Amino acid sequence: MSHPSVAQRLLRASVSAVLLAGLATPAARADEGMWTMDNLPLAQLKQRYGFTPSADWITRVTQASARLALGCSASFVSADGLVMTNHHCANECLAELSPKGQNWFQNGFSANGQSAEPQCPAMELDRLDRISDVTAQMAKALDGKQGAAYSQAQKAAEAGFEKDCVAGDATHWRCDVVTLYHGGKTALYRYKRYQDVRLVFAPDQNAAFFGGDPDNFNFPRYDLDLTFLRAYENGKPAKTTYFPFDPDGPKAGELVFTSGNPGATSRETPAAELELLRDLELPSGIAYLSTLDGVLWEYGRQGAQQTQDAQDELFGVENSLKVYTGWQQTLAQPGTIAAKRAFEAGLKSWIDADPKRKATFGDPWARLMPALAKERQLYTRYAMLEGTRSPRGFMGDLYGYAKILVRGAAERAKPDSQRLSAFHDANIPALEDSLKSSAPVHPALDETLLAFSLTKLRQVLGADDPTVHLVLGHDSPEGLAKSAVEGTKLGDPAARMALWTGGEAAIKASTDPMIVLARTIEPTARALHDEWDNDVVSVKRQTSETIAKARFARDGSNTYPDATFTQRVSFGQVKGWDENGRQISPFTTFAGLYDRATGSDPFKLTQGWIDAKPHLDLATKFDFATTNDIIGGNSGSPVIDARGHAVGLIFDGNIHSIGGDFTYDGAQNRAVAVDSAAILAALRVVYKNQAVADELVKGHL
Amino acid sequence: MSHPSVAQRLLRASVSAVLLAGLATPAARADEGMWTMDNLPLAQLKQRYGFTPSADWITRVTQASARLALGCSASFVSADGLVMTNHHCANECLAELSPKGQNWFQNGFSANGQSAEPQCPAMELDRLDRISDVTAQMAKALDGKQGAAYSQAQKAAEAGFEKDCVAGDATHWRCDVVTLYHGGKTALYRYKRYQDVRLVFAPDQNAAFFGGDPDNFNFPRYDLDLTFLRAYENGKPAKTTYFPFDPDGPKAGELVFTSGNPGATSRETPAAELELLRDLELPSGIAYLSTLDGVLWEYGRQGAQQTQDAQDELFGVENSLKVYTGWQQTLAQPGTIAAKRAFEAGLKSWIDADPKRKATFGDPWARLMPALAKERQLYTRYAMLEGTRSPRGFMGDLYGYAKILVRGAAERAKPDSQRLSAFHDANIPALEDSLKSSAPVHPALDETLLAFSLTKLRQVLGADDPTVHLVLGHDSPEGLAKSAVEGTKLGDPAARMALWTGGEAAIKASTDPMIVLARTIEPTARALHDEWDNDVVSVKRQTSETIAKARFARDGSNTYPDATFTQRVSFGQVKGWDENGRQISPFTTFAGLYDRATGSDPFKLTQGWIDAKPHLDLATKFDFATTNDIIGGNSGSPVIDARGHAVGLIFDGNIHSIGGDFTYDGAQNRAVAVDSAAILAALRVVYKNQAVADELVKGHL
Repeated sequence: MSHPSVAQRLLRASVSAVLLAGLATPAARADEGMWTMDNLPLAQLKQRYGFTPSADWITRVTQASARLALGCSASFVSADGLVMTNHHCANECLAELSPKGQNWFQNGFSANGQSAEPQCPAMELDRLDRISDVTAQMAKALDGKQGAAYSQAQKAAEAGFEKDCVAGDATHWRCDVVTLYHGGKTALYRYKRYQDVRLVFAPDQNAAFFGGDPDNFNFPRYDLDLTFLRAYENGKPAKTTYFPFDPDGPKAGELVFTSGNPGATSRETPAAELELLRDLELPSGIAYLSTLDGVLWEYGRQGAQQTQDAQDELFGVENSLKVYTGWQQTLAQPGTIAAKRAFEAGLKSWIDADPKRKATFGDPWARLMPALAKERQLYTRYAMLEGTRSPRGFMGDLYGYAKILVRGAAERAKPDSQRLSAFHDANIPALEDSLKSSAPVHPALDETLLAFSLTKLRQVLGADDPTVHLVLGHDSPEGLAKSAVEGTKLGDPAARMALWTGGEAAIKASTDPMIVLARTIEPTARALHDEWDNDVVSVKRQTSETIAKARFARDGSNTYPDATFTQRVSFGQVKGWDENGRQISPFTTFAGLYDRATGSDPFKLTQGWIDAKPHLDLATKFDFATTNDIIGGNSGSPVIDARGHAVGLIFDGNIHSIGGDFTYDGAQNRAVAVDSAAILAALRVVYKNQAVADELVKGHL
Repeated sequence: MSHPSVAQRLLRASVSAVLLAGLATPAARADEGMWTMDNLPLAQLKQRYGFTPSADWITRVTQASARLALGCSASFVSADGLVMTNHHCANECLAELSPKGQNWFQNGFSANGQSAEPQCPAMELDRLDRISDVTAQMAKALDGKQGAAYSQAQKAAEAGFEKDCVAGDATHWRCDVVTLYHGGKTALYRYKRYQDVRLVFAPDQNAAFFGGDPDNFNFPRYDLDLTFLRAYENGKPAKTTYFPFDPDGPKAGELVFTSGNPGATSRETPAAELELLRDLELPSGIAYLSTLDGVLWEYGRQGAQQTQDAQDELFGVENSLKVYTGWQQTLAQPGTIAAKRAFEAGLKSWIDADPKRKATFGDPWARLMPALAKERQLYTRYAMLEGTRSPRGFMGDLYGYAKILVRGAAERAKPDSQRLSAFHDANIPALEDSLKSSAPVHPALDETLLAFSLTKLRQVLGADDPTVHLVLGHDSPEGLAKSAVEGTKLGDPAARMALWTGGEAAIKASTDPMIVLARTIEPTARALHDEWDNDVVSVKRQTSETIAKARFARDGSNTYPDATFTQRVSFGQVKGWDENGRQISPFTTFAGLYDRATGSDPFKLTQGWIDAKPHLDLATKFDFATTNDIIGGNSGSPVIDARGHAVGLIFDGNIHSIGGDFTYDGAQNRAVAVDSAAILAALRVVYKNQAVADELVKGHL
């Protein structure tokens, strides 16, 4: 487990690297499930809600749904390519487009007419067009193949499917082969690509994220977490299928759907892996992140500049902490893991009951045990020295650059097939973009983070650890951090690119103290990376695949597959819940927003909202909660009613939704959305953007 | 669970307030046990070590052992009242005695001859004199009594025992009735009181606590955690039984004993309580303390003054974190709680097998369940608003004073018997001392702590919580902390005493913002206190007593009782352990100290040590590890050999000893001590204090 190095709201897709794969849960109950469009839960919908989707409904939900490549969901909500997503999904665009001296992320943005919509740099929007089941073709292509031949045939088949699907026009179409049910099913997803995406409207951050960290993952909620973009094609607004925008929002108890791209769930993860997560990795990660949270909080108190420099990192840490704490609580409930154990026992009996099945699947749970023992043994060193995203013992942007440079030089000297995946040719352009980035570094914050993480390194591994000796020598964590940050030139993109293009020779010759530090630890970290990958990760993946295949052989697709950041529909209803005997209403209103506003961050309204109060209908519904089963990646998903109209915009889940990584609890797990009525009222009354409001209600049907 | 408000090394007695009582474990194995002098494990000693203590040995161990009232152990090591204890047990004395501009705590102290030994303010040393078993007399006094009459008879009997024991001379004798085995046995402990205790020698803090927090609870270790005091009687050095000081220290594998006052263990705590601790209270407490750790760490980086102001709190937090993390790891091992469950099942069967026993004891485990359900429900609010020592939502010395003043005014208006125990007449002088204290407050640190804790209050209880509304209103945590700290006069002892003596009327009339804050929360906090005490604490105590009595009825005293900060002997041997396949040697040497010294805190030596290096025998053993079963409160315990000579000085345990609260693991649990050879060499060569060294080896036998 590592924490996101970039601040991310939960509902962006964020794969927990600890949890790599797994196995299916028992048949879905209640409103559980993230269903693929070609396998909707028709029986459940009919039985629970008396609803049967029409072919038109299915087509519209498929084709009006979209995905932002950076990890969010979105939808088309007008005939002229208007796209609705979350404010927190457009942060980078808002920051990057802000003219000097302005801050569109903080203060909001309204384009002065369509011609004045600025293009978001490097934003790609993919609109889902078609899903094809290619399981049978894939099976045919692989028939009788083993080992390397199998792998080669698989790659060739995938390339063939994608090539045929794109039909020579990769600029306009994107096709992905998607493996579902951990290998049980293979599908081909075709997306229409939009690489010209422009900014139409964003509210101020105070409204988009009213309540800040205290309210994050909570409900009642009062957020307008909204951005409108527009997809362009050949320089003109794209004409596509879309969700008509409902001016009134949903009613309590109403059947609603979400259509989005949940990033990853771990509902099929074996019980033994969850126990290791519960007993070792979550406690360790929570303690580390909590300490870092305190460091960043106190760092930010030292001045306005420090507050600003630390805020992204601080938000990311606090967000991760809520997630991990939620997981911890879910896994501490005796029922959670016991249910997995019962499921596994049943599947094992089913395998063992037939000699052929036994020969095919064997005992994957037994095969998992040595990998978990190894994981337990390596985990602490791995987290401190290498980590899935960044090493806990070496934090900060400057060290991050040094690590990419040092490792990248060695990796690029190898043939592509022998490199770590991060350094494959396909990923080099993105790496170079990050090295060339003119985003400012914050040396004082970097020094703090490095001093902190080196202190933790010594504390966690112990002062006698050979690696600690190697890193610190006779220096203190503070002293080493200071000399490395003060002495490095890596804050300068040109210096980074010189080392990058200089390759191994430049790295070997460098006296830059941050490069020296990264170079010192690299042999140890790199060896640990391999040991972890070979002895832990790949064994877990293999055993999980075996379990999943056995599961699929027994149960087929009468349930939903674990999330894969591809389009899924969830169904549910607008509904509150019982919180320790207190009934939580499913709706909030504008009145509640004004009651809650204290005038102090993060409960502070901008003057525009204060001035608008007399002109708003305070009974207007603002945010609402639903039983839909969503997870990170669903940010920006539309909430759709039975007619296929957009009635809301998903932006978060309640605190009980966090356990949704492992299990869906219909009693308390709730998705949280902005009401379409609030969106219209805010556009008209607060932001006085009649053009967008008019476009939404124009009803191009 | 709460963290210590004053920094405490683990091995001072520190009662975990979560864990109030409990029940006996299965018969002690290996070197397990904290034995009372009148119930030494003669069979185990004979069988494992071929040793049978003589009557003289027992008398000497009893009478040369001592206890510092502030929570440490100590021993007499010369015929002239020389007392050996830890440096960290004499912190207050060293700080209080330091003349202006000097810092004896940091730089050490050597009295220039006996006549120049300064008296430690308010230090009391109690030397154990005699233990009498009064179980039978107590039973007789209580025979046939019930309810209030029982309680009254018990108090009367205790008063009678103590009065007879003191024999009219309470200045020189102290007698305590001690309840062992959670009520199975009653003993009368008589101590010789020494209220004139003087400072003889202390090393510098760099040597006493070399390695600081990174090395705390770790081994190999290189600490001279030592202070010599002297007990005086009628203005002259006390002449008492003592442990002859061995100049050579122990050998590997040698049988050694400790004699000290372990504060509290929870080896008899029911499994269900441990599960609640593991699943709720430890995760919550560790996350809170970790964040606070980060805040204090970053606070201290802002300057020398900030470092100094925060260091006590920081050390206390990091020490608590190590303890709680150790507990968490111990409780996460499947065997720990499973063993408790098995023990409880056995005891329950024994009770159920006999109708009379069933009538006497009933089913205490079932009676415990509603209290634990209540604990689970109340815990978070209780920890934030009230807490066992201080509320997590309201930190800082200034708020602490306000809370004592507000609550104290209301409590003192009641008859003594109806007050909370902290405000009983007997405790008023100590409270007044703390209010009068001229110890400086640190307003900037207080503001930081209060802002942090109010932020946590809102985060943990949620922005919609009525208590959060009551406290913050429309203010922010930062704003409220700033106005309360800037506006309060409670930093001034005179202002505090004016409010104290003014009682309820003064509190009601006060406009001091810190008093206003404490007054606002008091009705909620006080009600929660009662609910917690009545529905959780007292039920747990009653059921634990019942379980303990059943246990004692079945097994008698063939095992040792949970620790009670009274004198206990543990036996064991000088021995390393296997740490993940690495063999840890039981000894360190002076050579290792110099190897480990980096020149940077906390691995920095004073010039005196650097200069002494050529003159020291670097092969001299410095610290050592033993299998003795010790716990907080054992700090300062002598390590004694089979002859009854002092061969070392306990000052810590290794990381595996932390789980010793719940269970003793002979494979890895180790006590850590300073070698008597190192003490002599350091006195002679480094500190050039030949007088004390000569006194130690003079051998007044």
